[in-house]
Amino acid sequence: MAICVTNTPRPEHSTIEQYQGTDVATVHEAQGRKGLMASYMRPIYRPLSIAGPAVTCQVAPGDNWMIHVAVEQCQPGDVLVVTPTSECTDGFFGDLLATSLKARGVRGLIIDGGVRDIATLTEMNFPVWSKAVHAQGTVKETLCDVNVPVVCAGAAVSPGDIVVADDDGVVVVKRQEAKDVLTHIAKRLANEESKRQRLAAGELGLDIYNMRERLAEKGLMYVKYDEGSHS
Amino acid sequence: MAICVTNTPRPEHSTIEQYQGTDVATVHEAQGRKGLMASYMRPIYRPLSIAGPAVTCQVAPGDNWMIHVAVEQCQPGDVLVVTPTSECTDGFFGDLLATSLKARGVRGLIIDGGVRDIATLTEMNFPVWSKAVHAQGTVKETLCDVNVPVVCAGAAVSPGDIVVADDDGVVVVKRQEAKDVLTHIAKRLANEESKRQRLAAGELGLDIYNMRERLAEKGLMYVKYDEGSHS
Amino acid sequence: MAICVTNTPRPEHSTIEQYQGTDVATVHEAQGRKGLMASYMRPIYRPLSIAGPAVTCQVAPGDNWMIHVAVEQCQPGDVLVVTPTSECTDGFFGDLLATSLKARGVRGLIIDGGVRDIATLTEMNFPVWSKAVHAQGTVKETLCDVNVPVVCAGAAVSPGDIVVADDDGVVVVKRQEAKDVLTHIAKRLANEESKRQRLAAGELGLDIYNMRERLAEKGLMYVKYDEGSHS
Amino acid sequence: MAICVTNTPRPEHSTIEQYQGTDVATVHEAQGRKGLMASYMRPIYRPLSIAGPAVTCQVAPGDNWMIHVAVEQCQPGDVLVVTPTSECTDGFFGDLLATSLKARGVRGLIIDGGVRDIATLTEMNFPVWSKAVHAQGTVKETLCDVNVPVVCAGAAVSPGDIVVADDDGVVVVKRQEAKDVLTHIAKRLANEESKRQRLAAGELGLDIYNMRERLAEKGLMYVKYDEGSHS
Amino acid sequence: MAICVTNTPRPEHSTIEQYQGTDVATVHEAQGRKGLMASYMRPIYRPLSIAGPAVTCQVAPGDNWMIHVAVEQCQPGDVLVVTPTSECTDGFFGDLLATSLKARGVRGLIIDGGVRDIATLTEMNFPVWSKAVHAQGTVKETLCDVNVPVVCAGAAVSPGDIVVADDDGVVVVKRQEAKDVLTHIAKRLANEESKRQRLAAGELGLDIYNMRERLAEKGLMYVKYDEGSHS
Amino acid sequence: MAICVTNTPRPEHSTIEQYQGTDVATVHEAQGRKGLMASYMRPIYRPLSIAGPAVTCQVAPGDNWMIHVAVEQCQPGDVLVVTPTSECTDGFFGDLLATSLKARGVRGLIIDGGVRDIATLTEMNFPVWSKAVHAQGTVKETLCDVNVPVVCAGAAVSPGDIVVADDDGVVVVKRQEAKDVLTHIAKRLANEESKRQRLAAGELGLDIYNMRERLAEKGLMYVKYDEGSHS
Repeated sequence: MAICVTNTPRPEHSTIEQYQGTDVATVHEAQGRKGLMASYMRPIYRPLSIAGPAVTCQVAPGDNWMIHVAVEQCQPGDVLVVTPTSECTDGFFGDLLATSLKARGVRGLIIDGGVRDIATLTEMNFPVWSKAVHAQGTVKETLCDVNVPVVCAGAAVSPGDIVVADDDGVVVVKRQEAKDVLTHIAKRLANEESKRQRLAAGELGLDIYNMRERLAEKGLMYVKYDEGSHS
Repeated sequence: MAICVTNTPRPEHSTIEQYQGTDVATVHEAQGRKGLMASYMRPIYRPLSIAGPAVTCQVAPGDNWMIHVAVEQCQPGDVLVVTPTSECTDGFFGDLLATSLKARGVRGLIIDGGVRDIATLTEMNFPVWSKAVHAQGTVKETLCDVNVPVVCAGAAVSPGDIVVADDDGVVVVKRQEAKDVLTHIAKRLANEESKRQRLAAGELGLDIYNMRERLAEKGLMYVKYDEGSHS
Repeated sequence: MAICVTNTPRPEHSTIEQYQGTDVATVHEAQGRKGLMASYMRPIYRPLSIAGPAVTCQVAPGDNWMIHVAVEQCQPGDVLVVTPTSECTDGFFGDLLATSLKARGVRGLIIDGGVRDIATLTEMNFPVWSKAVHAQGTVKETLCDVNVPVVCAGAAVSPGDIVVADDDGVVVVKRQEAKDVLTHIAKRLANEESKRQRLAAGELGLDIYNMRERLAEKGLMYVKYDEGSHS
Repeated sequence: MAICVTNTPRPEHSTIEQYQGTDVATVHEAQGRKGLMASYMRPIYRPLSIAGPAVTCQVAPGDNWMIHVAVEQCQPGDVLVVTPTSECTDGFFGDLLATSLKARGVRGLIIDGGVRDIATLTEMNFPVWSKAVHAQGTVKETLCDVNVPVVCAGAAVSPGDIVVADDDGVVVVKRQEAKDVLTHIAKRLANEESKRQRLAAGELGLDIYNMRERLAEKGLMYVKYDEGSHS
Repeated sequence: MAICVTNTPRPEHSTIEQYQGTDVATVHEAQGRKGLMASYMRPIYRPLSIAGPAVTCQVAPGDNWMIHVAVEQCQPGDVLVVTPTSECTDGFFGDLLATSLKARGVRGLIIDGGVRDIATLTEMNFPVWSKAVHAQGTVKETLCDVNVPVVCAGAAVSPGDIVVADDDGVVVVKRQEAKDVLTHIAKRLANEESKRQRLAAGELGLDIYNMRERLAEKGLMYVKYDEGSHS
Repeated sequence: MAICVTNTPRPEHSTIEQYQGTDVATVHEAQGRKGLMASYMRPIYRPLSIAGPAVTCQVAPGDNWMIHVAVEQCQPGDVLVVTPTSECTDGFFGDLLATSLKARGVRGLIIDGGVRDIATLTEMNFPVWSKAVHAQGTVKETLCDVNVPVVCAGAAVSPGDIVVADDDGVVVVKRQEAKDVLTHIAKRLANEESKRQRLAAGELGLDIYNMRERLAEKGLMYVKYDEGSHS
């Protein structure tokens, strides 16, 4: 027995759209360093950057049946998040499923497993972040749940949470916190831009961030190189 | 003591040529899901796609001597398959050996070990699938067998078997089965194309593959999202 | 307590410049197969090739504070080498620090840990070799030493040692040996070029390197393929 | 800023006690194959078997400060669950902290990181499941949350959830489902015992589970070994 | 569709029995360094040492159905060799299947995947070599072949080949070569015993094996430690 | 060409003996958190604890020739440290070499590679820390240096440095610092013992180490569990 949850909520459209173009590192920091997937989740080509609400899908190892069930739950702008119930790097997903998702306006796939047909997926310009590339296909035998809370690559994801993915990886923002986090993102970006200009002009982080005093307090000592002691 | 087997058989030329442009995932499925190498075998650049009969070569860890012996056994259109007798990711192969293979018309290299000079190999447009990239070179001290049956990245390979490699990985087709598998490949491709068009038009896999009834029989239930139980 | 060593020596400018464009595999061989970092050190984009004297920087796991201290010690043409005191693949380094290093004329970063903002680093054309890509940021809490001898990805590096990095990986040449190694590099390159031409013309390595006799002595036997025994 | 949640709920004492001696594999099956931690979580000695309600503790990589905060939240019979905010295998925990936990009656530690002093922990008979053994110690600099929902080795854990750990690994039962799952466990164990006796008596699983017909339907064929085709 | 091959041949009983107590390293050397499984294959407890003819069994990832089919093919003294068709570390095997195999007199299990119930398997004294320990169970849905040639942990295994396993790992001897290899094993063991006695008496390998001259020829130089150059 | 350095210095006998029974974690902390080998270095049986001056030995991948050269350089009480010039987990070392080392009074082996015959080594009670257990043997073909500074499992080791190894791993103390570090070790152990007694009596680390104020300053807040917000 298994369930597929329908009518799952999504954040407001305007909230979702404000996440387009944000970067994973900034979002992760802005929400207090949580929600980041494991660093083994890599894009199949670069550069890539997407954001959208999650449709979640569990699959059995070596079995991609439930992805077909999940596809129907996807709306334009969604991001499909697939996670096996135990570690498996089979190629759960290929160009046919990508064609189907693209036809429905899905923004991309996040899968804690393997994908295949990556040459075609790259030509199709269909964004995928995966744990592996593997030509090994799968069967369609076992039920799992769709649109329930899952753990994907170490991060908890519920349907409707916002998934942001770029060349650095994948981060998840809780649906309930999606609006608040935007405020923190905006602050960080503004702050970073001013820092970037000063650094580009040759100022040192040591001075911009006033680190010298705190470094000295903690005990950092500057010593001249002495050939004798280091040779 | 070691042997180098000469005059190994290859499939008919027309059979080999029909494998050009086939993809690894399809070939793997078409022959009953066997012969696939481990997913750690990755192309050094993308996109890449080759097919050809195998010349097989064992090497000792940290020793590439036998590759020189194997080069002489290669004919135009062949694919060289190299596997260490124990795990070793040294750079067994670089631009000089690639120059030699290219001069002989060899289509590419499959190595369950490391390669080096990948910037030059990429410029030369010489296809390589390997387990690692490693600048660490090797010596020329130890004999191993050439053109005997080997295991490479988990797949059994005999000389003359057809090796198909693309961005998804590497698959091996037994020489004796090479012709038969072609029939299965053709069927799969025809079938896939019609599916692709229907999926692109927005039809669902659930309907195209008649999955709904079987999903229900196995116990899949659709339930409406209930904020209370999921919050 | 921790120290930052200043006024560390560098090889002569002319010596450093002769390393530009040399490749890691050749340098590694030329100095007797030492100084190579682990093969997990990969460039964030390709092709890349740099060489320059090392500024070394230890960091605590999850803490990039000392990189700010190290930046000030960098001169134009330097290569920053960062190594955590215990294994950690956090994103210690991103576009802001890259902006700062670029402003100082630093040639690139070698880090036995993670980096982030790689889309921006690629656009900026700032060379980085790292163990991982990870959006997970770091704190600024713990002191470590700067410009002391360190072990980075398995290779010992002292400040002023020459770091050569390309698509194959990263190698370190001791400052005291930097001049001598250049002689060996020149010899190898000259030797390789003549070999390359002969191989490209179709000569076999077996003949160019006079291997046939030694192979026979060690016991290599050529046997004709016999369908009966191999089928 | 960080929080430590106090007065977290636990299941009834009688419920917890019924989990003592249950095995991870059975619990995992009994609750529908969820809640299992990654297989890299291994006991530091064997055999080991514990069960108890979770106190959860996040730590920064290389920093075990918050474990001291979590210790105070532990009651007799609890299991402490520690997870770094990013992957880190430092030795966050050693014999001093074990002494403290033992004094408070804590049943054991689950840590998605490293431990040290395992010779002493073994002598003390203090159960630990960890990702690694590592002598590398940690600092006490960075705040994280205690007793909030966390992801540990791929499994979601909330304070008060029941953690069951044995030689096979670690599984988590949601507090709200702890009582229900017990019923399923009892059924499975009864069922298994009768199977075990029949299997020990030489009956085949093929017959006990009536598999022969279904195997035939799916297409399993028994063929006699033919030396010619297999040699 | 899948096949289960029956009536597979085994070596003579007397040949099999002479392999009891031989060690994996010696057998591997004696047959010319082939047939060794990957070093990740570890015994679930130590010490362990078995030898017997292989019954081979493929399984789908996450699916142990075919093990039930293979059990029926096992005879007293056999060793069951199980390999998934794609990488999977699920717990395919536990105490119930071990009870069944033990009832049939099977000597042990070799599995390129996970096992569970290892506390019970250890109590039962049932030898297992596996890639992982994992409580995650499997389903019974997909057919695979039984008693066909397979690749297990990188080694080719045919039914009836002799499997030797001890604390060092697992090695496979081709059925057709089983008798010949015994002669080589006997020679090696005799030779080793005399070496062991001389080494125990304090003689050096350098002298026993006459290495000094060859080392000098290859260029080994003995130099006295010089504090100045090494400090 | 290669060198074997003779007459390498060792610390005073009394200094070496004071390291017997110290633990790796304490030594590592006492010398400022340096010199620790990677956590993949594991003892082949437990418990184990040794300390002694290093004889260092490089080996080529798949080649243990130089270990025979190194054996002659070993004196009673020494620890042999072996490191391959590139990653290789072959079984470089087995019971014959252990017999030879034991005859010379060597305390144990540290090897950044594989060992074999571990059942016999365990019976012989010969301590070994290794990266892997692997039955795959090696050849005797290639020269490397003996008793030169090496990097082993990420730690720099020079001949005469003191190696301390226990169930937690392996740490290296520079010969020149061996005496000084002893003082720091003594302090730490005294300090730890008093802490252990207070913790065993039920005092909290929070109080013993006066952490409460600093935690509050950094912003730790204690909040009561609220079912509504956490369910």
